[in-house]
Formats: sequence, C-alpha cells, structure tokens
Amino acid sequence: MLLPSLLPGVGLAGHGSSHTRTSLAQAGTRRLHDNRLQASTLERASTPPASGSRLGEALRQDFPVLHQQVNGQPLIYFDNAATSQKPLQVLQAMEDYYKQSNSNVHRGVHHLAGKATAAYEAAREKLAAFIGARSSREVVWTKNATEGINLVAYSWGMSNLKAGDEILCSVAEHHSNLVPWQLVAQRTGATLRHVPIKEDTQEIDMEAFHTMISPRTKLVAMVHVSNMTGAILPAQQVAEAARQVGAKVLLDCCQSTPHMPINVEQLGADWIVGSGHKMCGPTGIGFLWGRQELLDQMPPFQGGGEMIENVFLDHSTYAPAPCRFEAGTPMIAEAVGMGAAVDYLTSLGMDNVHNHERELGGYLYDRLSRVNHISMFLDQDGVAVRSGHHCTQPLHQQLSIGASSRASLYIYNTAAEVDKFIEALESTIKIFD
Amino acid sequence: MLLPSLLPGVGLAGHGSSHTRTSLAQAGTRRLHDNRLQASTLERASTPPASGSRLGEALRQDFPVLHQQVNGQPLIYFDNAATSQKPLQVLQAMEDYYKQSNSNVHRGVHHLAGKATAAYEAAREKLAAFIGARSSREVVWTKNATEGINLVAYSWGMSNLKAGDEILCSVAEHHSNLVPWQLVAQRTGATLRHVPIKEDTQEIDMEAFHTMISPRTKLVAMVHVSNMTGAILPAQQVAEAARQVGAKVLLDCCQSTPHMPINVEQLGADWIVGSGHKMCGPTGIGFLWGRQELLDQMPPFQGGGEMIENVFLDHSTYAPAPCRFEAGTPMIAEAVGMGAAVDYLTSLGMDNVHNHERELGGYLYDRLSRVNHISMFLDQDGVAVRSGHHCTQPLHQQLSIGASSRASLYIYNTAAEVDKFIEALESTIKIFD
Repeated sequence: MLLPSLLPGVGLAGHGSSHTRTSLAQAGTRRLHDNRLQASTLERASTPPASGSRLGEALRQDFPVLHQQVNGQPLIYFDNAATSQKPLQVLQAMEDYYKQSNSNVHRGVHHLAGKATAAYEAAREKLAAFIGARSSREVVWTKNATEGINLVAYSWGMSNLKAGDEILCSVAEHHSNLVPWQLVAQRTGATLRHVPIKEDTQEIDMEAFHTMISPRTKLVAMVHVSNMTGAILPAQQVAEAARQVGAKVLLDCCQSTPHMPINVEQLGADWIVGSGHKMCGPTGIGFLWGRQELLDQMPPFQGGGEMIENVFLDHSTYAPAPCRFEAGTPMIAEAVGMGAAVDYLTSLGMDNVHNHERELGGYLYDRLSRVNHISMFLDQDGVAVRSGHHCTQPLHQQLSIGASSRASLYIYNTAAEVDKFIEALESTIKIFD
Repeated sequence: MLLPSLLPGVGLAGHGSSHTRTSLAQAGTRRLHDNRLQASTLERASTPPASGSRLGEALRQDFPVLHQQVNGQPLIYFDNAATSQKPLQVLQAMEDYYKQSNSNVHRGVHHLAGKATAAYEAAREKLAAFIGARSSREVVWTKNATEGINLVAYSWGMSNLKAGDEILCSVAEHHSNLVPWQLVAQRTGATLRHVPIKEDTQEIDMEAFHTMISPRTKLVAMVHVSNMTGAILPAQQVAEAARQVGAKVLLDCCQSTPHMPINVEQLGADWIVGSGHKMCGPTGIGFLWGRQELLDQMPPFQGGGEMIENVFLDHSTYAPAPCRFEAGTPMIAEAVGMGAAVDYLTSLGMDNVHNHERELGGYLYDRLSRVNHISMFLDQDGVAVRSGHHCTQPLHQQLSIGASSRASLYIYNTAAEVDKFIEALESTIKIFD
C-alpha cells in the first residue's frame, strides 16, 4: 500500500481533550503501519458525546461560513488550529465600528475620535479580564502572535542577552517561537537549547528540562499547548523552575487561549502571546501580555507615532507601555472585533468550551483509533484538515516524519461531523487499499 | 483675544489642491494675528467647484458613517489625513471573505485554504498594479505604514549602515519616518541629518538638500506629501540626486497614494510605504513596496511561520520576498479589504480623485483666507478636524508653534461641507472675540 508522500502521519490536535494529554500522533509511515495508538490518559467516548454535540449544534447558526458545500458535500471544518471561524457577533461589531465610529484613535478631540478610542481601549480591557491580567496596561495589541514574540526578542532579548546566556525552548515549538530566538542568538552570542519530547507520549520531557535549566538560563520560551500534538505544558512547574534560576518565561498560548480558561497569574509566566484569529477574532490582530514592571523596563521595538512622548530631531522620549509598543495607527477595527470575540467566548464559558472539546476530541480519538490509515483526499468529501509541517519542522524531524495531517476541533464542531469525517476517511483508505 | 493654548495655528492639509503647493499653515498665534496668508501657486476657486462637489455628492451613499449627527449637527468629516472612511464595497468584501472563504493561507490544501490564498494574493496583485510595480512580488503586506519603515530600518538599515554614513530626512517627517532612523543611528553609529523647509512656502528646501547630500549619504528617507502642510516633494529630483551618490531612497507615501496617481517607477524610489486605512481600506494593513532585487538581498526582520523555507533547531533558511517579510498569519481579511479599496479608487480614477480634491481644497483655502482666527470648538458643530502635533513635533518646533489644527479633505467631501465648516468656524471665532 502506498500513501501520498506528503502524508505519512496523522496528528490530531484535539485541543483540550484532556488536561494532561490531548492528542494522538501516528508518526511516520512505519509507525502508521504498526497501528500503534497511544491512548494515554485520554478519556474515551465510544458513543457520541451528548453535551458536546449540543453546544456545537447550538452555535452553528452564528457561523455562516460553515453552511456551504465543498465538492457537493457539506463542509466539515476541522482546521481550527490554523484559524477559527468568526461568529456573526464579531463581524457585526466590526461592521458597526466602520459604519458608526471609524476614526483614528488617541490623538483626536472630535466626537468620532473619542468613540473610536473608547472602543479600542474597551477591547483591551475585555482581553485583560479574559486572561486574568491585573491591568489592561499589561496588554499590547500586535498584528499576530508572531509579532508579540518578535517584540520580546528584539526589545528584551537584544538588550538583555549576551554570550554565555542560554535560551531554553523545546523541540515542539512553532517556528514563530524558534526563528526569533535563532536570530537573537546569532546576534547576541547567546545559546539556544531545546528540551526534547518523550517519543511515547509526545509531551515535553520534564526530566530533561530540569537537567537543562541552570543559572545560565535567562529565558524559557515554550509553547503552552502544541499545535501539532495538542500536548499541554505543565506551565506552573516550568515557571517555578525558571523563577529559581532567575530566568524569564514566555509562553506561546495561541493554542490554549481559544480552548481553555487562561489566567496569567496562575500560569506564572512573565509574557504570554495569543492570536486573535484562532479564538473567533478577526485576522490581523494578536496580543502580548507582559508583567507591567517588565514591560515598563523594556526599550521600544518599532518606532513611530503613538509610541512616543516627545520627538526631537536627534532623539525621542517614549510613552509608557502598552503604547510604547504600538507604533503607528493600530489595528482598531480588529481590536473591536477581538473584544466581541472575547465577549462571545465569555458568554459560552471557557469551562464549557473546554468540556465540549474534551468530549468531542475524545470521541474523534476513539473513532479514529479503529481506522488503520489516512490520506489527504478528504477535501473531496468536504473535509478541511491541514496537511504539512504545521510550522513545526523540527518536531517532524525528531519524529522522523516529513509531514502530517491534522484534524483540529472547535466550539461549532459536532459528533455528526466526526462521524462524517470517519466515513470519508474510510472511503479514502479503500481507494489506496 | 485668547485662543486655546493647544491651537495656536491652523494647518490645512488640502491634499492635492495643487501639484506644487497644496496647503496653508498659519504658524503660531503671532503669525495668526498677522493674518498672513501664503497663496503661493494655489489655484483659487471663489465659487463652489461644480465638478468637485458632484463627485463628493455622488459618493456619499457609499459611506454610511457620514450619515450621522454629532451634537445635533450633520457630521462633517475633515480628518481624512488621520484616516479615511471606508465604502460599503470594502466592508462587503471583508464580510464576504469571512462568510465564504475564511481560512489560513498558503499552507493548506483544502478548498477554503485555496480560496483564502487566492483572495489574499489577488489583493497583492491589485495593489501592485495600482502603484505601477513590475510584479506583486515587490509588495510586502505590513500592519501599517510604520511597520514598513521599521522593516527597512531593521533589515536593510541595521545590516548596511555604519559610523560615518549619513541618513538624510527632512524636518517635516512624520514621527514614523524619524524615530526608526534615530534608533538605527543610535545602534549603528550612522548620523541622521535633516533638510530644513522654507518657512515661506513650507516646502522642502531643495537648495539645502543638494548641499547636504554627499557620498556619505547612504539613505534618503522622506515624506512624499506632508501630513501637516500638504507640500509635495519633488521626488524625481531627490531620487536622481540620490542615485548620483549611490544612496537609497525611501518615500513615505501615506498621504499621496490616497489622493493622486502613484507610479513607483516614475517616482524613482527604492522603497515606498503606504497605509491602507488612509486610502479607503481597513485598519490593520499597510504595504511596503521595494525593488525586487533589493528585497531579495535584505535579511529577515521578524521570524516565524510563512517567512521560512526550512527550519532546523539551530538555524533556518528563508523564503524569497515578499513572504520573507510576512512572519506569522498575515492580515488576510484586511488584504482582501485593501484589494476592494484599490478597486474602488481605480473605478473612480485617481486623476478624478486628484482633481476633485484640488478643486475642493482650493475652495476651502479661498474661503478660509477670509477668516481671521480658528478654534477647536468646531466639534460642537459636527465638524471633525484634528488638533495637536499630527506626529510632526519637529516641524512644529521649527515653525515655533506648539500645535496646529488640520482640516483634510477626501473624495466624499463637498463644497456644501466647506461652507458649513466656514460658518462653524466664524461662529466659534465670535465666541472668542
């Protein structure tokens, strides 16, 4: 049997299907043929989960994009780890902004400028509350989560790291949490080290982590929930170990903020980044949260309007955080949309979101464990999964696979869609058998 | 007579009211009392311009935000140099994207991913054609124009400038084209020099420019159209002088692309930046255009997904431009909206846009020249102008004023609005007299 070379494996980022272990990854054609399935501590559901399905069914009316046919079949959107869909409430908030309030923010004294500024800052308050920040001053709007990491790399990294210092990542980082640190390491002489994952559970190897962290470690930059395996980092344990050696901690929370309750104080990190478009918000916006005293000490990243206090020809003084890091006209409508996304998720309750996805992820895992093989021809059946390296090439290298296929769930997915997905998968396999 | 201290002057950025001289700025309370008005070469219109008004009236139905009352008066939006309003066509394009095609771009093989990628790249093609680029590969999407300048500063500036080199700006630069070069100068040892403006015409002093440019000059970074005075840079003359000494040229085109035909080959620059939200596009997007061979030589700025070719734990190889400079999930819906904005402006014809604004700006100039004083209480009459330093503090310092008030026009403004503005201005003045 031949499988398309692009698709030797299948990784299921079933976010939040368990607090300790959320996913399945059959690594490589060889292992796929072994048909080994690591159930780990995953909660199994052999029948469709009632409550989970109820939430998904109830929400589908809010997502017009889901009501379309692809290749004559109803669309099944299982590519939520790449981007989520947006509810009508978010689209309406942005439309209202453009039709009623659009103006540039902060600098104008006229009526529209006041409305726009109020809307922009209200969204920052909403996000701050959503992640348990002490103040909205700790929230910096960025164009995406990647920019948040680059901001810390350029601002804090370039001014605080030097030869002999170590940056500790894992092999499971998204490229966005690897490449900026490679660039900083090249420029400062600091050393970038990578904690391995355990091949059996695909979780971060915490024993190795504790061996590798030392007083030389100045920064731990790690993914909170893997976008490929769905494994969840024991963040508090990481933060405590970092605190003991005086290292800072940055967490990539792109795959956790959409799917589970997040509280920055409980996580114990110094910075987290998140992505708007992965949590029902619009494209073009993300955020960096940082401890206020730390943000206030950091030098500017990009220069321009909004981030200054006074500009003279030869030098400038800078505004306090968060404005210091928001050079230029910001993503105003996008922030408004992001505020509406936070309202939407809050109205659902992040515990309910998490339970829905845990149940539905468990059901998907269970049904998939009875299927031998997988392929990419699912698109013909209206199924949108993602195939490739998912911006985690080093993790694929460690697992000795060239690429993988990922099905990732969200609030509007249902058990009926899982059933249809499995059907499509089985018909596809028949083609190759 | 006392004027509010914030508003000693009035600058009218009547974009495009003349090819060579577009604006009036009464600088400082003292000069305001002198009531000196520099008509320069401006075309006067003593009666309302018929054709200009026709365009404005015809377009107003496309802009729902304009049809509202502020403090019981119809809104008059004259703050277009800060941000433009968005036509329904742009809002519809973004709504259609979210309701029909939303997906992450470039990496997915499923149907929605293909649609989203096609829409994102089609917008790039549209913008490339709009500015006369040879290829869409020369267009990099950024979150705003400021990011485009910072991209050049960090990527090209940090790797090409050294002590002894000179960067030539003008005193009229927006902070976004000053602060990044201050940061680069501090870090590389290069020297930042500023060409003065002529106080009588408020244009760049080209005699001084030719004296200051030399083989030490490695970069000329200048504003194409001033956001405060509206003065237009003789870009070809600047580019030719730069070419003769081997310097690169970056033009800040934020206030020209919305208002007049732009052709990058005719401008002769190496890079230009522009802003989406100032040219009928959404917030959260801008662009950097650069000559392809130059972009291909430039090292990465931000690191992350999308911008890489291959990632290993210790190093990465990078994608060619423009992807090399688009780390992370891009501003997808915003690019789609920007494409629709380009379609909208193209359908009007940029020559018509320019003529409309030249006529209407001339009429505003003419009516304003008969008014002695100005104030900020216009908001009570529904008039939205902007007061402050307009992100050009050094220019205000040179003109010895603390701040100014700016009325800036766009395609949907009409002669009737100018009349209403003058009425409101005159009543305000009575309060203070």
